[in-house]
Amino acid sequence: MTQTLPSAAVLGARAFAALDGLNRFTDEPGKLTRLYLSPAHRQAAEWTRGAMEVAGLSAFIDAAGSVQGRREGPTPGLPAVMIGSHIDTVKDGGRFDGNLGVVAGVLVAQALRDAGIALPFALEVIAFGDEETVRFPTSLSTSSALVGRYDPAWLDSRDSDGVVLRDALVAFGGDPAGIAALARKPDSIRAYLEVHIEQGPVLETENEAVGIVTAINAQKRARVRVTGEAGHAGTVPMRLRRDALAAAAEMALALEAIAAGHEQAVGTVGVFQPDPGATNVVPGAVDFTIDFRSPHNATLAEMDRQIGECFGEIAARRGVALSITPYSQDEATPMAEPLQAALAAGIARTGSNLGARRLPSGAGHDAMAMAKLCPSAMLFVRCEKGVSHSPLENMTEADAGIAIRVLLETVLELARQEA
Amino acid sequence: MTQTLPSAAVLGARAFAALDGLNRFTDEPGKLTRLYLSPAHRQAAEWTRGAMEVAGLSAFIDAAGSVQGRREGPTPGLPAVMIGSHIDTVKDGGRFDGNLGVVAGVLVAQALRDAGIALPFALEVIAFGDEETVRFPTSLSTSSALVGRYDPAWLDSRDSDGVVLRDALVAFGGDPAGIAALARKPDSIRAYLEVHIEQGPVLETENEAVGIVTAINAQKRARVRVTGEAGHAGTVPMRLRRDALAAAAEMALALEAIAAGHEQAVGTVGVFQPDPGATNVVPGAVDFTIDFRSPHNATLAEMDRQIGECFGEIAARRGVALSITPYSQDEATPMAEPLQAALAAGIARTGSNLGARRLPSGAGHDAMAMAKLCPSAMLFVRCEKGVSHSPLENMTEADAGIAIRVLLETVLELARQEA
Repeated sequence: MTQTLPSAAVLGARAFAALDGLNRFTDEPGKLTRLYLSPAHRQAAEWTRGAMEVAGLSAFIDAAGSVQGRREGPTPGLPAVMIGSHIDTVKDGGRFDGNLGVVAGVLVAQALRDAGIALPFALEVIAFGDEETVRFPTSLSTSSALVGRYDPAWLDSRDSDGVVLRDALVAFGGDPAGIAALARKPDSIRAYLEVHIEQGPVLETENEAVGIVTAINAQKRARVRVTGEAGHAGTVPMRLRRDALAAAAEMALALEAIAAGHEQAVGTVGVFQPDPGATNVVPGAVDFTIDFRSPHNATLAEMDRQIGECFGEIAARRGVALSITPYSQDEATPMAEPLQAALAAGIARTGSNLGARRLPSGAGHDAMAMAKLCPSAMLFVRCEKGVSHSPLENMTEADAGIAIRVLLETVLELARQEA
Repeated sequence: MTQTLPSAAVLGARAFAALDGLNRFTDEPGKLTRLYLSPAHRQAAEWTRGAMEVAGLSAFIDAAGSVQGRREGPTPGLPAVMIGSHIDTVKDGGRFDGNLGVVAGVLVAQALRDAGIALPFALEVIAFGDEETVRFPTSLSTSSALVGRYDPAWLDSRDSDGVVLRDALVAFGGDPAGIAALARKPDSIRAYLEVHIEQGPVLETENEAVGIVTAINAQKRARVRVTGEAGHAGTVPMRLRRDALAAAAEMALALEAIAAGHEQAVGTVGVFQPDPGATNVVPGAVDFTIDFRSPHNATLAEMDRQIGECFGEIAARRGVALSITPYSQDEATPMAEPLQAALAAGIARTGSNLGARRLPSGAGHDAMAMAKLCPSAMLFVRCEKGVSHSPLENMTEADAGIAIRVLLETVLELARQEA
């Protein structure tokens, strides 16, 4: 028996009810803290398996702790469209980060099953467990397991209590020896789609409910040390100073200007520590960090060059020593163009007057890992003031409904393309 | 029997030998730490009394712990020319800060006595004990006692071990009840002269052994808080940021430019603390301090106005909140013009090719207190790289000798003027 697809309003209400169910599982009462392989994670995984099964998917918790659900296509073993995100959280995190994307997948599967809609491909929903890199020093380990890029050294890493990941995984009910077998063949996944709150203010500022991610930004981080000469704040004349703080302040402003000079790029000085840091002493040294990002590898490289040149000029002019020590760099992950187009078509299919704003993602996501395996795309959803990783994280039920409806239409669009 | 005055070289050698004697007294073996009213201070005071007496002065340790030495003029009770500085030090301090000025006074008295030179006024040498404000939260208490501005509340203040100043003074051998009687009549001191290392790099840079202090700078300090909006370093576009660190960096550079725009003024940001101070977070707030100084009260007021205007403009333009909370302000203390002229004459009388460079003092000195009582002046002496309040504090024996010889000639110049 066929029935019509649920409206965005209905999907929004279902999503918020489901999130209330999922978010009862926390490692810290009164907060939402659900770390990879914790008891709360295990309970949330069981809940997710139940939700998937009720939505008509065959589901299991995999060797790495992800929950995988699947509904076959016309014949078993066809390539799948996979919808997913993660159910781990940061400490004292928000309700929507990751969880929304998992619930969205479950509700799409449920709506398609309820409407009696057959798809020409398999449909999968996945709830990854290790996206936030809070408990162990891993990097998207659960999605990397599907990609076949799980680093076995991660199993030996320890959390802050000294617990080894391997032991935590066994206690969780996982299977360290089974992780390698989780790797999927590239052809087996036709598309990976992830709905996620934006965690930034762009959509809210532009009054858009959803946006299509163009790329997950390339990113580079470095520690910078400026060494001048400490001196008495009262006795060293301005012309004889080699003030490390003034030099570092000028560099912070230079980074800001460099970032502002490239479309969609950002640059941030977050840590800034003068030495000795006393009111009456001209700082002899400053340690600060730089973090800069762009959707384009070439832009990041150009920013890097400009930073080196500009900081070097400032240091030379002010007679201070400069060292820039990069400690992290990620290439940009462009989202698959055909899937961006399918998301745009999905937006159009809703018949609403939604825009199809394209924007880069400044933060990392499981889609970064999945893009190494299969065509991947993300739909961002407006959130309140861009706040995330905080109990203040918020979004409207209406926006959640719109996003899930767009996701549903996108799956139907992919089905149309396949037919 | 009259003999010639000792050369600068002889005075330098005597000064360094005397400093070795005085600096054996420390509260921390291996370092020079001589806090007000400590056992090392008491021993140093006894040593200083001995040195004064051997130099022909009548000497005593006064009720507040200063060592006072006096040689009468032609008749008892005449106004005195007083030479002094302090024998307390900071923790792990330098050998010359304060001590040089006391030794200079003793050696001048000795040289005059040895040469059989009669003066038309009394000669006094004083070793103050509480200049550094390290142990108790006082402010030039021992010199203020002479000025009649000793704040009785200081007696109730405590050091970091909870020891009350009154009790420490009694244990030292002082007399809390006798402090009020230390106040001198203004007419009783004709001039106060203080030799002190510059504690800054001006004289060294300009290749001058000594300089005449024009004023002890006016000074103002404030805590500044800039409040913007914290955000994810990856997801908040540059145009939507209210980055507190970038705003504060711009203010630090503005302070630098304002200070550089006024002759002999300085301005320093020494403390600078972003909140939360994480690599991947746009800082939501920054707390920093400003310290600015000028030899002229009017210039300090103008700087204050410029800072308020400029910081306000930056805050408004960047959409951040600004609070500036002043917590300390000192008026400028101009040095007596006739005594500056006498020091210049003293320099000329040495017959050397010394310059008579005038420069302000960025740091406070006992002369700040004494200037409220009587005409006061200071002679700065070149020190190595401007370093002070450190075991690395250094100067040459030759420069010490030059300074003491200039001081001697200045006393003779004052005698000539009196005659």
